[in-house]
Amino acid sequence: MKYIIIGAVAGGASTAARLRRISEDAEIIIFERGQYISYANCGLPYYIGDVIKDRNKLFVQTATSFANRFKADIRIRTEVTAIDAEAKTVTAVNLITGEEYTETYDKLVLAPGANPVRPNIPGVDQEGIFTVRSVADTDYIKAYIAKNDIVRAVVIGAGFVGLEMADNLSALGLQVSLVEKTCQVLPAVTDPPLAAIAQQHLREKGVLLHLDTVVTSFRKRDDQFEIKLEDGELLEADIIILAVGAKPDLSLAGKAGLTTGKAGGIRVNEFMQTSNPFIYAVGDAVEFPHPISGQPVVSLLAGPANKQGRICADNMVWDNRYPYRGAINTAIVKLFDLTIGVAGLTSGQLMRSGIKHLVSVTHGNSHAGYYPGAQLLTIQIVFSPEDGQLLGAQVVGADGVDKRLDILATVIKHKGTIYDLMEVEHAYAPPFSSAKDPVNMAGFAAENILKGRARVMQCTEVETLPEDATLIDVRTEAEHQCGTIAGAINIPLDNLRLQLEELPRDKTIYIFCQQGMRGYLAQRILIQNGFRDVINICGGYYLWKAYHDALQLPGEVSHERQMV
Amino acid sequence: MKYIIIGAVAGGASTAARLRRISEDAEIIIFERGQYISYANCGLPYYIGDVIKDRNKLFVQTATSFANRFKADIRIRTEVTAIDAEAKTVTAVNLITGEEYTETYDKLVLAPGANPVRPNIPGVDQEGIFTVRSVADTDYIKAYIAKNDIVRAVVIGAGFVGLEMADNLSALGLQVSLVEKTCQVLPAVTDPPLAAIAQQHLREKGVLLHLDTVVTSFRKRDDQFEIKLEDGELLEADIIILAVGAKPDLSLAGKAGLTTGKAGGIRVNEFMQTSNPFIYAVGDAVEFPHPISGQPVVSLLAGPANKQGRICADNMVWDNRYPYRGAINTAIVKLFDLTIGVAGLTSGQLMRSGIKHLVSVTHGNSHAGYYPGAQLLTIQIVFSPEDGQLLGAQVVGADGVDKRLDILATVIKHKGTIYDLMEVEHAYAPPFSSAKDPVNMAGFAAENILKGRARVMQCTEVETLPEDATLIDVRTEAEHQCGTIAGAINIPLDNLRLQLEELPRDKTIYIFCQQGMRGYLAQRILIQNGFRDVINICGGYYLWKAYHDALQLPGEVSHERQMV
Repeated sequence: MKYIIIGAVAGGASTAARLRRISEDAEIIIFERGQYISYANCGLPYYIGDVIKDRNKLFVQTATSFANRFKADIRIRTEVTAIDAEAKTVTAVNLITGEEYTETYDKLVLAPGANPVRPNIPGVDQEGIFTVRSVADTDYIKAYIAKNDIVRAVVIGAGFVGLEMADNLSALGLQVSLVEKTCQVLPAVTDPPLAAIAQQHLREKGVLLHLDTVVTSFRKRDDQFEIKLEDGELLEADIIILAVGAKPDLSLAGKAGLTTGKAGGIRVNEFMQTSNPFIYAVGDAVEFPHPISGQPVVSLLAGPANKQGRICADNMVWDNRYPYRGAINTAIVKLFDLTIGVAGLTSGQLMRSGIKHLVSVTHGNSHAGYYPGAQLLTIQIVFSPEDGQLLGAQVVGADGVDKRLDILATVIKHKGTIYDLMEVEHAYAPPFSSAKDPVNMAGFAAENILKGRARVMQCTEVETLPEDATLIDVRTEAEHQCGTIAGAINIPLDNLRLQLEELPRDKTIYIFCQQGMRGYLAQRILIQNGFRDVINICGGYYLWKAYHDALQLPGEVSHERQMV
Repeated sequence: MKYIIIGAVAGGASTAARLRRISEDAEIIIFERGQYISYANCGLPYYIGDVIKDRNKLFVQTATSFANRFKADIRIRTEVTAIDAEAKTVTAVNLITGEEYTETYDKLVLAPGANPVRPNIPGVDQEGIFTVRSVADTDYIKAYIAKNDIVRAVVIGAGFVGLEMADNLSALGLQVSLVEKTCQVLPAVTDPPLAAIAQQHLREKGVLLHLDTVVTSFRKRDDQFEIKLEDGELLEADIIILAVGAKPDLSLAGKAGLTTGKAGGIRVNEFMQTSNPFIYAVGDAVEFPHPISGQPVVSLLAGPANKQGRICADNMVWDNRYPYRGAINTAIVKLFDLTIGVAGLTSGQLMRSGIKHLVSVTHGNSHAGYYPGAQLLTIQIVFSPEDGQLLGAQVVGADGVDKRLDILATVIKHKGTIYDLMEVEHAYAPPFSSAKDPVNMAGFAAENILKGRARVMQCTEVETLPEDATLIDVRTEAEHQCGTIAGAINIPLDNLRLQLEELPRDKTIYIFCQQGMRGYLAQRILIQNGFRDVINICGGYYLWKAYHDALQLPGEVSHERQMV
């Protein structure tokens, strides 16, 4: 059996390696238009930021070592320019010699990846404006920074790559401005409140955020760029990074007459097989139904690409026996001292898909509060109001974010519920967690919401409250004095039972504390004392303040300032 | 409804707090014979080790704050001495005033915990020999260390508490000896190979291990102890810590005529209800069927105690609607720079229970190898040969152990399989993981074993091989030269296809590499080239060497030494 694989990074290389492991006599030819195979794509921003110092570390395998170990015929700097699906041949061009030739195949794998989007803005094609997708891009950026006097950088786009570049360019000592067309970072994968925490951290670290605006032109003068924004502002920079996403490379799929889908990727069935039964496809270029929403999605992530490659090889050799169950697109990014990560769907995505859901936000310590170094982390989960199925999770904090996200992703992936979160039996000793992990607490809070024991409103809704709303701050007087929500009156939780008569029984009572737990206790006391309409603000003052500050909304009261 | 709760640490306090949240009008009385409630039991060794410096941090709640917040009648220093289950009353004694009185209840919760075992060894009752279970124990130890000139400590028992004490006493600068009656650390919860890695780390950190022996007497002379071991050795120490386990406190259960079980705990049904329908029990004192083996077990862990408390309250108020599904007893311990953790059952436990299973050991990096700071971690999983159900996991390494264990525990808890491990969609960015997480790799390797594509032997079996066994070291020549298994010949993986004719086709071929992956590749090459009987040594030379060194077995060859 003769296999041709086009593309030798995550998906293609994984397919080839697995193919060889399960089939020693397969003939395997790999075409790669670039110079490198199986390189550490996700490490490129960190190499630019000098966190990874040795360029050689980016190369997991060389073409020679891979060819030898896996008995594969690897042809780098060779581009496949055409596919004749009828004749089962490809046309390849050696990019160094220009030689063109055809190769036959029994089965073909497309792993062409995605191309970075270069937005159509006047001046975008000048030297000094870079995308970050390949080793070549990275080399250009490193060389440009080394050669020129670079002090200020502008990063366009606040997705994962944009944020990693903001972090790494700051690490080099550059003043970084981040321009994002929506009003939040990570707009595609997070909801505003948790994104707000990340935004505040970026600002604290000196990154200048320009949200809710786009670039209208790039002008270069004496090696310096003038970046004009739609809102009229003018930024100056010495280097510009474009990080506005990437799109599946469909050029060969088109030439082979393969079906593409709504999400802009090559359509594959659950066996990674395209509309042509002899052609399979994996990685950034394919689309598949999202396991939760059922809607077609593209995943531009290394994890799914690797897993698809392995399954693709199994299905080619063993006649489509191993279904791929899709990816919930778990993803994470380190942002200076903070980490933010996501899995499954956001509340926004669910709303747009018309899927009913509930939202709960809880905070917890990364490990036992009495053991040194514990740090607060925040978990938002979204879940079905019918059966509690966990539909998505977002986690942000300084430590332990990846761990909680992995647990949550494992539950989401296997169609688990918030009840499963309650039962997670995590590894507990004081350096690692608490007896009840933040993931357990997320489950407990969600159960209370789902069963109607706790009614919550999201911090995003607070600004819609009427001015005369009864808003109770159940934190201590000292906490209240440091700042509260405008209009709130302070009744510390431990006094609440004594002050019940001061509260109106005919009105909705809105409650908040710092993180949400005391608010919930207060809510339980009030409801069981005959107050019917009591709502706790999800995530407490901590989350409301982050959201509020990030959006620079009115409504916060600092008593300290008032009293001066 | 009037509830009495006996015991106010993890299980009892959780029960009380949840009870109040769901029932504002419940009458709640809590009896606690000690002085403190809801304290950080798991933090005690770290307070002794001065890692936690402030004693106040151990107290999550005081009796006053808890009583106020949860409107509970907390009676500390009060011991319940009798239960009249017929009359539904308890007899309580105020340990300060000596006053004795009875209280009635509608429902009673027993959360008496467990008592540390004080082995019946001559001289065990002298001052300077301590157990570590309560705040009082801890205060005694701290005071004894402060008052005396303490240089050497002997810890008896290498379970979790023993190991934490070895770590923390070393942190104080003491020379620590650890005496353990089995031939490994963590004998109840780990299998020998992974325990061996921990043992080697303890030795590297200067802890003197005395395995496979017991203490026969303690003698004290001039504030110094002489500890006589069964094997004849005599240890000297200035302080002795007994950490040989704890047993459920059954005294009250006995007085109330409650049924106890085979595992030595109070028997409860899935609603945490004892044999008396008005008495519930939670925490260290209860036994429940293990979710995997079905056999009764006691869990001496804070996580299960907390969760049992919450469920117990729900069932008391809502008439047994919420079944407790048991605990797989996930547990973890920090050991100097190493972490070791477990979930579910060990291979040894499964063998003793007559449950068929397969074992796979894999190694992986804590995060992407090209990103600074990656460290090796080792995962052993045990799984069903029928359907791949994951039955247990052990993880050891310097970083990221808790995260992998939490993922594995989540899969075990929900009766997931090794196929679920393959599909875990973890959060990947270079600082956090690799595109294929070590948990995925554990799943991949297990699938290969389960499907018969990879045959493995455990490192514990290597010593049983005949002398003339064909043993191939497929590492590089340089690796081979640094040390190998006696009798191994070196054929580096990348040369293997060229040297096939040198290998016997009529004999079993045993293969190993450093970690297992290259051995697997070699195995695939040989099998597909017609070698029928090829076995890869699980976990590679790395694991074999740790196991071998820890047991001080013969059979290792260091070419360096030979060639000198």
